[in-house]
Amino acid sequence: MSHKKLTSARIVGSGLIGTSIGLGLVQRGVQVHMVDSDVKSQSLANDLVGGVSISNPDLVVLAMPTSQLSAVISEENQLNPQSTFIDVGSVKNEVVLYVQTISGLSKRFLPTHPMAGREIGGASSARADLFQGRTWILTPSADLDSASHQLVLELIEHLGATPIELSALDHDRAVARISHLPQIASSLIAKQLTGTPPEWMELAGQGLRDTTRIAGSDESLWKEIIYSNRSELQQLLINLQNDVQSMIDSLEDPQQIAQLIAQGRAGKALIPGKHGGKAREYFYLPIVIDDKPGQLGAIFNECAAMDVNVEDLNIEHSPGQLSALITLALSESDAEKLSTHLTSIGWNVHPIRK
Amino acid sequence: MSHKKLTSARIVGSGLIGTSIGLGLVQRGVQVHMVDSDVKSQSLANDLVGGVSISNPDLVVLAMPTSQLSAVISEENQLNPQSTFIDVGSVKNEVVLYVQTISGLSKRFLPTHPMAGREIGGASSARADLFQGRTWILTPSADLDSASHQLVLELIEHLGATPIELSALDHDRAVARISHLPQIASSLIAKQLTGTPPEWMELAGQGLRDTTRIAGSDESLWKEIIYSNRSELQQLLINLQNDVQSMIDSLEDPQQIAQLIAQGRAGKALIPGKHGGKAREYFYLPIVIDDKPGQLGAIFNECAAMDVNVEDLNIEHSPGQLSALITLALSESDAEKLSTHLTSIGWNVHPIRK
Repeated sequence: MSHKKLTSARIVGSGLIGTSIGLGLVQRGVQVHMVDSDVKSQSLANDLVGGVSISNPDLVVLAMPTSQLSAVISEENQLNPQSTFIDVGSVKNEVVLYVQTISGLSKRFLPTHPMAGREIGGASSARADLFQGRTWILTPSADLDSASHQLVLELIEHLGATPIELSALDHDRAVARISHLPQIASSLIAKQLTGTPPEWMELAGQGLRDTTRIAGSDESLWKEIIYSNRSELQQLLINLQNDVQSMIDSLEDPQQIAQLIAQGRAGKALIPGKHGGKAREYFYLPIVIDDKPGQLGAIFNECAAMDVNVEDLNIEHSPGQLSALITLALSESDAEKLSTHLTSIGWNVHPIRK
Repeated sequence: MSHKKLTSARIVGSGLIGTSIGLGLVQRGVQVHMVDSDVKSQSLANDLVGGVSISNPDLVVLAMPTSQLSAVISEENQLNPQSTFIDVGSVKNEVVLYVQTISGLSKRFLPTHPMAGREIGGASSARADLFQGRTWILTPSADLDSASHQLVLELIEHLGATPIELSALDHDRAVARISHLPQIASSLIAKQLTGTPPEWMELAGQGLRDTTRIAGSDESLWKEIIYSNRSELQQLLINLQNDVQSMIDSLEDPQQIAQLIAQGRAGKALIPGKHGGKAREYFYLPIVIDDKPGQLGAIFNECAAMDVNVEDLNIEHSPGQLSALITLALSESDAEKLSTHLTSIGWNVHPIRK
């Protein structure tokens, strides 16, 4: 089967994801038409991407919340009976069911999930490079045409993302564990802070900040995701609840407490390190700095001069102080090299020796 | 009452905290004697700090796990009947009970909790500046002598920490909410990852990494802390369990899901921003960089040149890619200024417009 080149795309839904896809495709010479049920949004999106009217588009992108998909999927299929289709939702089981209700569509429909940031929405936040370096999950069914498959891979290549293929069921199970359950847990931990006196909150450290960071997420997005993936989440929530009960039951026995904490440590160790490699043992180099512009730059200049690669960085502040503690995550050899160097030129480094 | 100057300290327990206190005090001209039940550890610690034998020390620091405190507290009081005492444990209720069993000791004993990092232990990891810029919580009882109180404030000033006073009960309630419950929850979230296929783990994003970071903590430390604070933690765990049940009960109703997520967002908003101020609305500036030395330094140089203060920073990597996404947290005006500047000189910035 010949490789069909992607020359035109109809993008239904002009939010952050849809408009970003449009911008990215136009930059790669693909003709794009932005479509939205809201006339003003459609007009703005087409202005942003330089959209043009297209008949018989190679690709139709359904870029809307899953809950709105059922309303448009049949109509779009009738309008574009030859086109390849994708959606971009965070949960895939419902899409697969919708597609199966429409005769012949499953050969041309590839459910996908681009894992790109969505802190803020709307066409005006869209960027052609939103997907660059991000993972884009594809969940092809067994009867997908290889031409359609190829076309979607071309789309993802155009946008600079990395395709990963999973079954729709595995996708939903995977994101339930690694994304949706942590989101729910983070929100529920943060909920426990309700009513805490402000003077206690002053004692909050980096652990609380990290654990609750994603609790700041938008509930209108997450209610859809959680609802759509409820069949996977139910058992995971019951498992979590049982483990909370185990901790309650263990409170009088330090050895049982230790076992639960150790099981958590073993679970965390399954999270891979950067670039898909195994989790690395980073060495942490804490440095006390004055909290003013120029300090971080000066440290990173020294890192560059010493050919040291900073794997991660954390900035911590103490209440009422005008200094900050930054902690660099480094390889062992880089940590030793940088620690010795920074100390020798007067930085306030706390080298960690194993 | 006259201000008694701190001239000598006996430090019982030569781990990270005890030895760091010793190092810090010696640097400020205070005579220190390190004591440990293990003869080799005691010898090493005294070598490290330049310890000398002291009779009638001004201050006795009990720097050991709370579970070992009961074994030494009475003996140390008999040896040093005039000295001021502190401990440094993470939970205060048990210490208060021990002190009350010894006649007259509560006038000279101030339970404390230095909030300093403990990722790694042992005298060899000790640093004179471990407490610099950190919070040090004091839980003075009503009958504490003001001379003893003053002496402990002098200790904390010597070590560069910031004292905050709370009742022992409030301390334990506060740390249960802002530290111990988040630790347990993070461990239990990470525990749910057990058995997850490696190819699913490849999809892990920053949300999972942040939420489970402290799940990497040492269980031998945390079993003691959780056990010691079990009376406060029990109800908090029951509350969490009830909220997990509420989520399970809400799975069929998107509006109820949204309400729980929104309550989490409101709880998170109670966490103060840096320097004890209210949480600020940071603006986030994502930048795609090549993952190699020098990139971060170059960006921070531009920040310094533009007089832009980086409030926080996050580094994210995509599986299989050699680029990284860094996100700077900035004030609104700094974000606009830096975004315009970096874009103009060719950086791959995704400015966020509200």
